[in-house]
Amino acid sequence: MARVNENYSNLKQSYLFKDIATKVAAYKKANPDKKVISLGIGDVTLPLPEKVVEALKEASDEMGKADTFRGYAPDQGYDFLREKISEHYRKRNVNVDISEIFVSDGAKSDVGNITEIFSRDNMVMIPDPVYPVYMDTNVMDGRKIIFADANKENNFLAMPDGRHADMIYLCSPNNPCGSVYSKEQLRKWVDYALDNKAVILFDAAYEAFITNDTLPRSIFEIEGAEKCAIEFCSFSKLAGFTGTRCAYTVIKKDLMLERFSLHDMWVRRQSTKLNGVSYVIQRAAEAVFTDEGMEQCKKNIKYYLDNAKLISALLKEKGIYHTGGTNSPYIWMNCPSNMKSWEFFDLLLNKTSVVGTPGSGFGMNGEGYFRLTSFGSRDNTIEAVERIRRVL
Amino acid sequence: MARVNENYSNLKQSYLFKDIATKVAAYKKANPDKKVISLGIGDVTLPLPEKVVEALKEASDEMGKADTFRGYAPDQGYDFLREKISEHYRKRNVNVDISEIFVSDGAKSDVGNITEIFSRDNMVMIPDPVYPVYMDTNVMDGRKIIFADANKENNFLAMPDGRHADMIYLCSPNNPCGSVYSKEQLRKWVDYALDNKAVILFDAAYEAFITNDTLPRSIFEIEGAEKCAIEFCSFSKLAGFTGTRCAYTVIKKDLMLERFSLHDMWVRRQSTKLNGVSYVIQRAAEAVFTDEGMEQCKKNIKYYLDNAKLISALLKEKGIYHTGGTNSPYIWMNCPSNMKSWEFFDLLLNKTSVVGTPGSGFGMNGEGYFRLTSFGSRDNTIEAVERIRRVL
Repeated sequence: MARVNENYSNLKQSYLFKDIATKVAAYKKANPDKKVISLGIGDVTLPLPEKVVEALKEASDEMGKADTFRGYAPDQGYDFLREKISEHYRKRNVNVDISEIFVSDGAKSDVGNITEIFSRDNMVMIPDPVYPVYMDTNVMDGRKIIFADANKENNFLAMPDGRHADMIYLCSPNNPCGSVYSKEQLRKWVDYALDNKAVILFDAAYEAFITNDTLPRSIFEIEGAEKCAIEFCSFSKLAGFTGTRCAYTVIKKDLMLERFSLHDMWVRRQSTKLNGVSYVIQRAAEAVFTDEGMEQCKKNIKYYLDNAKLISALLKEKGIYHTGGTNSPYIWMNCPSNMKSWEFFDLLLNKTSVVGTPGSGFGMNGEGYFRLTSFGSRDNTIEAVERIRRVL
Repeated sequence: MARVNENYSNLKQSYLFKDIATKVAAYKKANPDKKVISLGIGDVTLPLPEKVVEALKEASDEMGKADTFRGYAPDQGYDFLREKISEHYRKRNVNVDISEIFVSDGAKSDVGNITEIFSRDNMVMIPDPVYPVYMDTNVMDGRKIIFADANKENNFLAMPDGRHADMIYLCSPNNPCGSVYSKEQLRKWVDYALDNKAVILFDAAYEAFITNDTLPRSIFEIEGAEKCAIEFCSFSKLAGFTGTRCAYTVIKKDLMLERFSLHDMWVRRQSTKLNGVSYVIQRAAEAVFTDEGMEQCKKNIKYYLDNAKLISALLKEKGIYHTGGTNSPYIWMNCPSNMKSWEFFDLLLNKTSVVGTPGSGFGMNGEGYFRLTSFGSRDNTIEAVERIRRVL
């Protein structure tokens, strides 16, 4: 008889956002007059830039006419888009050939699917706390996982600790901690990977939030990374594409494991299991790189960063330890008075009608911490900050 | 050190479409004055229905405004679309709850990714000839594969032959053979699957081409299939979405392997590795189900089917055995004069400047056969038929 992939039995059910929703719903029911403000979600709220909408509509018209209609797209993405992405890298002095760029429907898909080209015998290292997808996708494959501690001592930036791993997940700017690796820190990870013949899976989904020019926005800014790293990037946070779906993954041709080219394996994986990304969406993504499009994207990101600043300023004023809040849409704060994550969640909800995310939901080291996001409206963020001030 | 998934070494490089492209390019170079007509591609050519383009543009406008902007879509797809799909099934007396429908970016993605929820120890059965993705995705996972013969004796509809398998791929209307299972034939497969506790992976991507009402368009028209089958369906051929990307997979809640619900496992897989499908694309897909949208789709499908009829009529006239040509966009023909597939390819190209696909590229049983498609323009199809007539 057919059998299932029994590794799925080892997945922990994540009740984090479900539990939050349940608590919020109960609170709203009991307090119908209270205005609840959510700083919990990791989703953008500002509309798509005008240039992007224009491009979407133009491409839609093209698809409605016989002479401009397009069928299957190239598996790796249209050259018109990959050239813009390559140029985007070049502006930061990173050389990425268009053949090394793989356009997809989302960084989450790529981060999830990439494990397929690796042996199930590899040892995986994941920072704790962490974006849950890194862990779950490897549990599904039955790989052994070890955790690299991120905590107050290293400002929630996990560093190599002498233990060996074959695949290492790094996320910078970090979700959920908002912390960003410096070039020196990434240099250590690249050296570690080269020494251990390991591969770094680098999630750069939030790179557009980096405003400090000395911080690396791509792991390929570090020499040697082309031989040991895969980078995942996305239009979701850069251009508000969470509901529009476009991303890209970079695998340099230099990335070899013995005789195997990971680039070529990923070409084979994608051409076998993907039929390219929607033409209209690729045109929308291309429009992000026009002067007008990029200006609008930067304006939106500044809006979120200014929200983050407001939250961060309050925490500084109150002397509360936190990471993020600059170069990131996330603020990762120590709960006041040694409260546990869910305790603080309850306090915040009940006393201020503000919703955040308990840090314990992201891993053991998240206990006692709390995530706030800057994706709310300005008015709501200002109001939330004033309300939170009262309980700190 | 990190190791790769070495199963990839067992993949055969598919040179089929590359070899075709090379031969065609050489021919064009040597014969710059000849007009080459391709009946080789499996890609639609008619533009998107007007209603679909309208919906795309309206949704694009919504995404550009603060009060109608949408972020992350629900993992399984918006209800507005899943309700329409459920209704689409209901019209054929098939009961599919919206919770059993999973919207995705493509049937190829789903057919490829579905293997993840199955044990690598399962025995896979694949018809020969076959759409190459079924085989490659299982080779990547290291599963053992046996082939079910499709040939002239069974009119290129593989049937159970007594051998055991755990996972069975069926494609009806078939790519590349254009053959369509009857209800009685599918009944045999469903009985076989129930007896063997096997799961049928049913690719219904071409169901919209079925005009004969006695033929099943969904495996769920067969009683018991809800307990042993997963169905993959797509907007690609129904509505010309090959370059727009939207599809859906149905897993009924009745489908259990011992204590494991495949439905719940797929929920987990998709919510871990997918962030939903673009809002604008889901609105476009919804528009397919408007009266006007569906009428336009049917008109387009009739256009292709009429092309197929022209090709089929020629083969009948010449007494050449073939399958497909009705209820399918494909015509699968026996090469004349006992020619091998590539021999006939060369003859057709050199004598008539018409390009088709050698059947041997789809499997051992494809040798001596040839695939023609109906996705060309009417004028080109008429001209190609006249040219082919001269060499038959």
